[in-house]
Amino acid sequence: MTTPTAPAPVIDPAADVVALTRALVDIPSESGEEAALADAVETALRALPHLTVERIGDSVVARTGLGRDRRVIVAGHLDTVPAAGNLPARLDPERLHGLGACDMKGGVAVALRLAATLTAPVHDVSYVFYACEEVSGDRNGLARIASERPELLHADLAILMEPSDAGVEAGCQGMLMADITVRGARAHTARAWRGVNAAHRAAAVLQRLDDHTAERVVIDGLEYREGLSAVAVRAGVAENVVPDNCVITVNLRFAPSRSPEQAEAYVRDLFPAYEVEVTEVTPGALPGLDRPAAASFVAAVGAEPRPKLGWTDVARFTALGTPALNYGPGDPSLAHTPGEYVPLAQLRACETRLADWLQRR
Amino acid sequence: MTTPTAPAPVIDPAADVVALTRALVDIPSESGEEAALADAVETALRALPHLTVERIGDSVVARTGLGRDRRVIVAGHLDTVPAAGNLPARLDPERLHGLGACDMKGGVAVALRLAATLTAPVHDVSYVFYACEEVSGDRNGLARIASERPELLHADLAILMEPSDAGVEAGCQGMLMADITVRGARAHTARAWRGVNAAHRAAAVLQRLDDHTAERVVIDGLEYREGLSAVAVRAGVAENVVPDNCVITVNLRFAPSRSPEQAEAYVRDLFPAYEVEVTEVTPGALPGLDRPAAASFVAAVGAEPRPKLGWTDVARFTALGTPALNYGPGDPSLAHTPGEYVPLAQLRACETRLADWLQRR
Repeated sequence: MTTPTAPAPVIDPAADVVALTRALVDIPSESGEEAALADAVETALRALPHLTVERIGDSVVARTGLGRDRRVIVAGHLDTVPAAGNLPARLDPERLHGLGACDMKGGVAVALRLAATLTAPVHDVSYVFYACEEVSGDRNGLARIASERPELLHADLAILMEPSDAGVEAGCQGMLMADITVRGARAHTARAWRGVNAAHRAAAVLQRLDDHTAERVVIDGLEYREGLSAVAVRAGVAENVVPDNCVITVNLRFAPSRSPEQAEAYVRDLFPAYEVEVTEVTPGALPGLDRPAAASFVAAVGAEPRPKLGWTDVARFTALGTPALNYGPGDPSLAHTPGEYVPLAQLRACETRLADWLQRR
Repeated sequence: MTTPTAPAPVIDPAADVVALTRALVDIPSESGEEAALADAVETALRALPHLTVERIGDSVVARTGLGRDRRVIVAGHLDTVPAAGNLPARLDPERLHGLGACDMKGGVAVALRLAATLTAPVHDVSYVFYACEEVSGDRNGLARIASERPELLHADLAILMEPSDAGVEAGCQGMLMADITVRGARAHTARAWRGVNAAHRAAAVLQRLDDHTAERVVIDGLEYREGLSAVAVRAGVAENVVPDNCVITVNLRFAPSRSPEQAEAYVRDLFPAYEVEVTEVTPGALPGLDRPAAASFVAAVGAEPRPKLGWTDVARFTALGTPALNYGPGDPSLAHTPGEYVPLAQLRACETRLADWLQRR
């Protein structure tokens, strides 16, 4: 199906959500290779007269234009991580298994079903299917839309169909990476006392990390549990040399109430005696559950929202002024695992809840 | 001079020791590339009727056979570390600069001068010029002689002409390498509390190293100062992953009174709670200053012997039952530095002292 001479794959967005998920899984779409799937999505949506469709790279945006008071975005990424012997899809009575079933072709299938079947929702809806979520941010399809056509991402609420066990996961935590460098002085190990061993001195930094108790920050009733972890330690010049520096790379997950600047200050304050170089920082996203559209959606789903501890593209919507939630079928801890699957009941529940909410007067 | 069609280099071992050192420096002999220099040494020595010459690989052994009561070995390695812009040799009024001037073509020049000029020393002398000292032990030319012709290395004393500032450095410390592994449990950093961060736990190991006071062991009046150093720390799976192991590589320099087994037990006892894998252990060499030949040589040199803290090939002689000392021109801390040089006064002093001792009745 993926050789150049094979017929282009075709999907039927009006099909049953399980069959549709299966069809999506069976169209390979590793990051950067989403063209065939984007073509299929674009073709299917262009056939629907109630939608206006645009293509931006390998991302597809389809909008209703009903003149409603509010607009809602339903978004999902088309790409997957590389295959791990988990294609084609395999169906059992309760689960659909296969690459991307959980992250996040199940969510994409729900969104396509809604796009095809809800011709007159109570809110205008923009469906956003985008490329390259699983790779570095500079390639992210949503970031490209935000850069080229930011107005397409302005709405009263964005629902990002990342796997969240068919519950609402609100906001997301921010993430900061920093290198902490401990300095010493080189010496030959036969005369180690002439040097200062940076690896030995790094004990104080690692002990501080071990002693550190991450904060738990409550926002809109949701508890964001932070975390500060050494994710790499590097020291070593040669077998016979006292190392003159040791670099500890730390990863901070911070509550969305902290700004990137505050997160950086937080890390610097913990290690005032060392060189701290922040190499990456990404703001979180506040849950925004006090916003009317979000509150209405949470009420419709009927379950207690949970905090999203990982980082997702909801932060990009938030940065554009659009409140965003994660809501999708699948257990997030199965994402990127060879055995990923999506429970059929969650596929159906997500479709039903979203359809009900979008049709309620 | 080093192209295939160039004439083979020639040395005159009866030349002045400074001129001879300069000539040796100007014959490149990086480890593994000693053939041209070994050829020159072999040719020069074969011309001397008082010596019996053998070639073993790119090592050359030349012996007197006078039937003396004692036999002394004078040894030096022919190879150097790679060049670092420090060729050809450069002479100033007090120093000869250039690759290997210090480590150890100065010492080799002294040995060649003795070989050429002392036709009837009071002890029989075996001159050993060997290859591949600066690389891993399995390539070492002295080890090859020890394996193929061990009788050539049996003597009452071996004088290894490693740079020691023209003083006697006795014995050498042993060396042990070990990997200490700290275990944890992986987790996504967004839920770091579900894992156990091995890098954080490594703080205890590094702190113990930092707190550790190395022992000072006195043998034959010489103080061997030991050292235990982390020379590498490695942890890290990915940016978003709590690492599940951290490996600290330690280098122990231990006094020659400890056996390798005792050295290993010493490290294991310091880290009873962790996995300790010994990857390399090399015994030291006792100074052996109580042996008559060594005592006589030390008295002839006239300066207080010092302990050798680094590891040198004296340990190979010791393992064969031959007491060995380091005695050679040049500051050992300049070895392997681009700016290495040898003081001319030390070249002459080493030659004079050795010649006097070997001619004294």
